[in-house]
Parts: sequence; structure tokens; C-alpha cells
Amino acid sequence: MNIKIEDKDFDLSDLAIKADLADYSPVRGCMVIKHYGYAIWELIQSFLDKEIKRAGHKNAYFPLFIPESFLKKEAEHVEGFSPECAVVTHAGGEKLEEPLVVRPTSETIIYYMFSKWIKSWRDLPYSINQWANVVRWEKRTRLFLRTTEFLWQEGHTAHVDEEDAQAMAKKMLEIYNKFMKEVLALAPIVGEKSASERFAGAADTYSLEVLLRDGKILQAGTSHYLGTAFSKAFEIYYQNKNNELALAHLTSWGVSTRLIGALIMGHKDERGLILPPKIAPIQVIIIPIYKNPEDQELIISECKQIKQELEELEIRTEIDADDQKTAGYKFNEWELKGVPIRIQIGKRDIENNVVEIVRRDKKEKLRDISRQGLTERIQALLNEIQEFLFQRNLSWREENIYTADSLEEINKILNDKGGFIKINWSGDYEDEIKLKEICKATVRVKALEEPNNKCAISGKDAKYKVYIGRAY
Amino acid sequence: MNIKIEDKDFDLSDLAIKADLADYSPVRGCMVIKHYGYAIWELIQSFLDKEIKRAGHKNAYFPLFIPESFLKKEAEHVEGFSPECAVVTHAGGEKLEEPLVVRPTSETIIYYMFSKWIKSWRDLPYSINQWANVVRWEKRTRLFLRTTEFLWQEGHTAHVDEEDAQAMAKKMLEIYNKFMKEVLALAPIVGEKSASERFAGAADTYSLEVLLRDGKILQAGTSHYLGTAFSKAFEIYYQNKNNELALAHLTSWGVSTRLIGALIMGHKDERGLILPPKIAPIQVIIIPIYKNPEDQELIISECKQIKQELEELEIRTEIDADDQKTAGYKFNEWELKGVPIRIQIGKRDIENNVVEIVRRDKKEKLRDISRQGLTERIQALLNEIQEFLFQRNLSWREENIYTADSLEEINKILNDKGGFIKINWSGDYEDEIKLKEICKATVRVKALEEPNNKCAISGKDAKYKVYIGRAY
Repeated sequence: MNIKIEDKDFDLSDLAIKADLADYSPVRGCMVIKHYGYAIWELIQSFLDKEIKRAGHKNAYFPLFIPESFLKKEAEHVEGFSPECAVVTHAGGEKLEEPLVVRPTSETIIYYMFSKWIKSWRDLPYSINQWANVVRWEKRTRLFLRTTEFLWQEGHTAHVDEEDAQAMAKKMLEIYNKFMKEVLALAPIVGEKSASERFAGAADTYSLEVLLRDGKILQAGTSHYLGTAFSKAFEIYYQNKNNELALAHLTSWGVSTRLIGALIMGHKDERGLILPPKIAPIQVIIIPIYKNPEDQELIISECKQIKQELEELEIRTEIDADDQKTAGYKFNEWELKGVPIRIQIGKRDIENNVVEIVRRDKKEKLRDISRQGLTERIQALLNEIQEFLFQRNLSWREENIYTADSLEEINKILNDKGGFIKINWSGDYEDEIKLKEICKATVRVKALEEPNNKCAISGKDAKYKVYIGRAY
Repeated sequence: MNIKIEDKDFDLSDLAIKADLADYSPVRGCMVIKHYGYAIWELIQSFLDKEIKRAGHKNAYFPLFIPESFLKKEAEHVEGFSPECAVVTHAGGEKLEEPLVVRPTSETIIYYMFSKWIKSWRDLPYSINQWANVVRWEKRTRLFLRTTEFLWQEGHTAHVDEEDAQAMAKKMLEIYNKFMKEVLALAPIVGEKSASERFAGAADTYSLEVLLRDGKILQAGTSHYLGTAFSKAFEIYYQNKNNELALAHLTSWGVSTRLIGALIMGHKDERGLILPPKIAPIQVIIIPIYKNPEDQELIISECKQIKQELEELEIRTEIDADDQKTAGYKFNEWELKGVPIRIQIGKRDIENNVVEIVRRDKKEKLRDISRQGLTERIQALLNEIQEFLFQRNLSWREENIYTADSLEEINKILNDKGGFIKINWSGDYEDEIKLKEICKATVRVKALEEPNNKCAISGKDAKYKVYIGRAY
């Protein structure tokens, strides 16, 4: 499979609006998620919620507002988040005694409650998951990738020790990875963040990094081992089996509506969205083709018949019978919206007992497909498209992992091609800064291999092998 | 069925906390919804979301923040909501040019977007539904019934004319009514609000009013015909079939986590919650009974077998095998939590091939229930309990509708019994004020009948027959 860096025809925000996923709102940096975009989010929620529950977590709901003093209890956390906070200072017509922060993430308020609920080792592991909106006041925003308000799930667990907590952080990371691969047809590189890229307050941050079609990288989900820093700040002590007080070890993990951005940018082509069948709100669009109005009834009735047969197999199907639009206009529109399979039916098709099928992924026309066994054929084709898109994303990633031994080489690769570059790195923060300033790149995650050369940034002895790249 | 006003043993907030549905949070007026309470909300969502979609509405998501100027565009709306607003004045470390209100409801921002999207009669009816959190800064709060932040769904539709919009407002009202009756086993009185009790900005408000076990009334859901006031304010004009610009007619409708309050207070008794089976997160709790540890394995294995059989019928079942607690303690705890059916199994039961069943609604013990056909028996019993609770709530309402012809009579009935009182009313606002001041009661909804006597409040000629009562 030979894929070039192409597909720069659409900017993400443009594409999201043209495909009717979202719209700009009158509130700075906030978007409106329209029906089609929200339907993708509902599918993401329904898949992930099942997996999260299967892993033993139950949902709960905590307040939107966090007392400002809570945020300040964990030093790194406040440093990371306070510049991004929206603050309620007035309510009910009066000035508040203490300002309330609109949650940028809920560690502080959830752990305050954990300290009330967790008393003994018998209460551990303790866990909750929450589907909620959060607000981070970002300077530059972009639909789905970085919006002031976004929707997400955040999971929080408390454990008796580091081993148990680390195992949970990694288990949730693997659940995200499996979900991205099997449902979103994306092949992230998964690994540990460098110290400077960790979540504010975390001991370890694990991340899933997706290579997009434009050569840039997107952090699509994270899972954190938080150690005991928050437990200390919020006094989450439990009585252990020896009747001693011990600090709980915490984890948190989340994915957001940003996944929709990953989905768009991870699969799109010059015609628009390409949605993997499992996550496509409409899997099959049926378009009746007729010139003479007298053919309309027959053809529409055949379309309805096929729709009904597909729906019996739980294939999400729509008919576009809008007679204000030409067939050509509809083809473009549904390709833009990324619907995996288009079925076209004209009078002659009915006479010949066939239909025409167009695959969105390969832009391939399959003519004279027999009406007999059509639903099974569509079912199989949806699986094939799902698999094709995953393999394409995987190849895209594999073919765009480069190596480099100097800042010059790094810059050249990133300017020409984008992608991941695997380099040896000293582990020093000052080198990360240099990488950012000179190459506009960041350390994405640590690779599993040991370093085998000097640091590509500074020439110092290398401590880690890492993946770097330009990220959103 | 003879039911007295009893059951005052638990205050709602007490009960919600003891049954582990929710907890107080450190943020004024906000609660934490814990696993058990949130599981009820998830069931409410899953039932209602299906019905809302079946009625043709799709979900979307609009920003949490509303520019303050938007709220001011509709005069009645701002008057109604501005005293309850939480206001973000600072964000990203800076003072905002225009303060942002945290949505108390989303008419204004949604209709601003409608005006961008709706162009022609072909776009109508246009509709969206949103599941979201909203904030109203209330002076007095009470878990589930009135919290500063709550979760809800709000639906919004635009139509070509009043007839079409009124039909939608009533259709959604009927969907809520059916849901409350069939799923929550509650029998609300449904009708039109008086002018002073309408939603701020609505032309007509229809409401569902539930009589609780303590004799007080709860407004459990509303549907509004908004007329064209918001359309004027937000310029929602469309081109009609005659190519003229016309104002869209709007509706909005919503129910919230308050339904959980209705559920608790509509069914509870002196032992705690009674959950109707359809909405109970746990429908059957199985409790192994043994004194000798050597019996444990056999009994637990039988419990697991029954659980598995019940789960095959999709009956939500748990085993309480916690050996830190006595059986008696467990009985109390699961009764408090309102689980519809308890199964108890001891060694002798296994020998005799029977189990013991306890119905939560009637507190009735069914001894020596044959193990043969047990799952079908449980299935039938769950249906029976669902129906019994609905009939009980319906009788409760019917037996507590009184009539009165003076303020004195009204006061006496409300002090002695609570309930609904059907009275003749002049329709004058000053009489509503008098009713509130003297009897602490409000007009809940208009009855369908015509008035047949002078106004019970003022002795003036009556214009309406109405239901009044003391409400939360």
C-alpha cells in the first residue's frame, strides 16, 4: 500500500462544518455539535460505556463547579490548570464568597468525596466513571480537536498500592487502544509520556497517539497513574490489613469528543469524511435514480424494501429521496459525510434484479450486484471496509515512522513528510524545549527500545528512545 | 385500598443519602449522584431517549455558556431566570468583555442557532433534543427535588404554525405521561398551567403533577408552546410556501433528575425506598442464609445458579454474600434501597428444593416457593409489583382529590391531609397571591371541567376549575 501525504484539501473545521457534524457557536471557542456529529458521539459512548462497565466501573455524577481552594491543594495541578479556568464569581445576583471554577477536570472534587467514602482496605479498589462536560479556556481552538468546552468521560480509581493502581492505569489504556483499533479503525502508538508532558499532578501518564492524514499527531486519550500526591492533598487514608492508616494510590483516565477529530483526520480524503462502518451513524445510504416521475413509485418502493432488509440485520440505513437534489449532488454530499456504502437503484437495475454499490473507502464502483443475497453482501462489505480502514491507518503509521540523528534531519522530515520520528534523547527538559523551538515538535511517547546512539537534539548521552512529532 | 398519609419517617434528603443514591457536595446546593442513584438516571435516560427518538427527534449538544446579552433578548425570559443565574466573569486569567451565564435552560442559545439553520418551510418542523446539565441558583435546595445543578433533557422544536407546534407540545406531554405511568408507576395529573405559573417566555405551559406520599405535589415535567416570542427575539423567520417570510412557532419540553425525587417520594414507605421494577437498578437481591461456614459453598453456588437463570431473562440480579454483615442487617439495607424482590436461601431450602421470596411493595413473605419454574414466577411477580405500585399511586391520587369552597376549607384540608383540591377560580392573579399567602398553596393545573360555583378564594365569578395544592 503506497500512501502519500495528500488530503490537505480540507481543514478540519471546514470539513466538520461542511459534513454537518458541528457549527461555530456565538460563544468563544465553543462549538455546537449537530445531529450527525452527536450521533457519532453516542456510538462512541455506547461502545466505551460497555467496556468501562465490563472492567468493573460504574457511572456517577459530580458537580460542575469546584471551589477555587480545592484546585490549589495539589501544587502541580493548580499550576497546570489555573491559567485555563473559567471562573464563576457571581451567582443568584450576589458576589460569591469563594469563586467557583468550572471543572477543567474533576480530580479535586472527586478525591474530596473519596476521602469521605474510603475508610478501609475493604473499600478498595474504589472506582467511578463520569460522562460530563468540561471547560478549558484555550487560546486557539479548532472544532473537535481543541474547544473551550468539550464532552468526555473521566474515570477515577483508588487502590491499596502502586502495583494495583499501575495495573488499572494500564488496563484502561489497553481498553482505549482496543476500542480505537477495533471500532475507530485507528492504530495509535501507545506509550509513556515524558515528565514535562504528563498530566498536571500525575506520577506517570500513558497516552495514545494517532498519526493523522496530514502528517500531524493527535493525543487521542490518556491514562494516568497519579501516585499519592492527590491522596495526600485530599487526605485519602484507609485502614490497611494491619490496622495502619495508609494513603490510597490513584488513577484517572479519559477520552473526549476529540476522538471525533481523530476519526475525521485519521481517515479523510480529498472528498471528505470516511467513517469506519462500526462508528458510522449511517452505514448505508440508498439513492433512487430516476428521470421519469412515473418510475418514482416503483424505485422508491424497492429502496424501502432494501432498507427494511438491511435494518433487520441492524445495519443503519437511510434513503435519500429528496427530489430537490440531483443524484450527482447527493453522491457528493454522502461522500463528504463519509457514509461507508452507497447503493444506487435505477429502473434498469430493478428489471435486471441488481443494484450498484459504491464503496466510500476505495471509491470503488461495484456494478450489477445481484439482488439475491444483497444484505449478506453488504454485511460482509461493511466488515471489509472496517478492516481496510484499520489496515490503511496502520500502514500509514508504519510507513511514516522515521529515524533522525540531528535537529536538521528532524526538521527536514517533518517539513517534507510529517509522521513520527524515533530518536535517542537525553531525557533533559532543556532538550525538549530546544526541539520545540527549533522543530515545532514534541516528545510524544517513550518507545519500548533502549537508546542506541547519542541524543539527536543535543548530542549528550541518551537515556530514552522516544517518538517525536508535530502534534495538534 | 385504604391509604393514610403516613410515611413521614424519612425526609427526602435523609432517605437519598441513607439509600446511597446521592451525597452532599462541598459546593452549595450541588449534590453528588452516586452509583445507585446514577443507575436510576441511566435507566430513565435509556427509556426516554428511545421514545424521544421514536417521536422523530435527534440529539445534539449546545454550549454550556450563554452570552448575558442573549438572555436579555426575551423580556419575560430574562425576568424569570436572571435572579437564578451563575455568571462567569473571568476566564483564562482575564476579565471577560461580556459575562457568560451558565445555562439555566438553553432556549436562547438554541434559538440563536435555529435562526441560522432554518430558512424555508422545507426545513420545518425542525427539532433537537439535548441531554445536559443546567444550573439555577436556588435559595433552598433539597437533594433531587431542587439542586443548584441538575441533569435533564431539553427538547426544542420549530414549526410552521401554532397548530403544528401545539400538537408537538401535547405529543411530548403525552410521551412523558406514558413514561411516568408505565415505567415510573406514577399517575400524574396532567394539564395547563395558570399564566403566572408558566415557563418564563411561554404562551402555554403544560405540566405533569405527581402527588407524593407526604401529601405534597411535585411538578415532574413540563412541555411549553412558546408561540413566537422567542422567534421574534432571535429572528427565526422562514420562507413559507407563498414565498413570504413568516415567524416559526416554537416548543420546548423537559424532564430532569427531579424525576428521581418523584420516584422516591411517590412510592416510599417507613422502611425506605420502593422502586418499581422497570426502573430498579437491582430488581432481585439474593441473600444466602447460613450459620455454619461448611454450608457456605453449597448455598452460594445455588445463589449463583439462580442469578444466572434470572440474568438469562435480563432480570437485574445481585447476590449479597458479604459475610461481614448479618442477614437481618442485609434485609434492612435492601429494603431501604427499595429492591423489588428479595430471595432468601438457606440449607433447608436447598434440601426442599424451594426458596423464600419477600416482596418489597407489600412487605409480604412468600414461603416455600418451588425452585421449579422460579424464574417465570419472579418475572411474573416483577410485573405484578410494577402494576401494584402504579395502582397504589393512582388510588393515592384519586382518594386525595378534595373540593373546597373557601380559603378556610382549603387550609383545613391541606393541614389535615394534603393532596389536590379542585376549586373554582376567578382566574385573577391577586387571588393566586392570596391563596399562596393564606394557604401556602398554588394553582397546579387547570382541570378539564367548567367552573360550577363562585371563586373559592375571592367569591368572584369563576373562570376556571383548577387543581390546587402545596407543592415542592
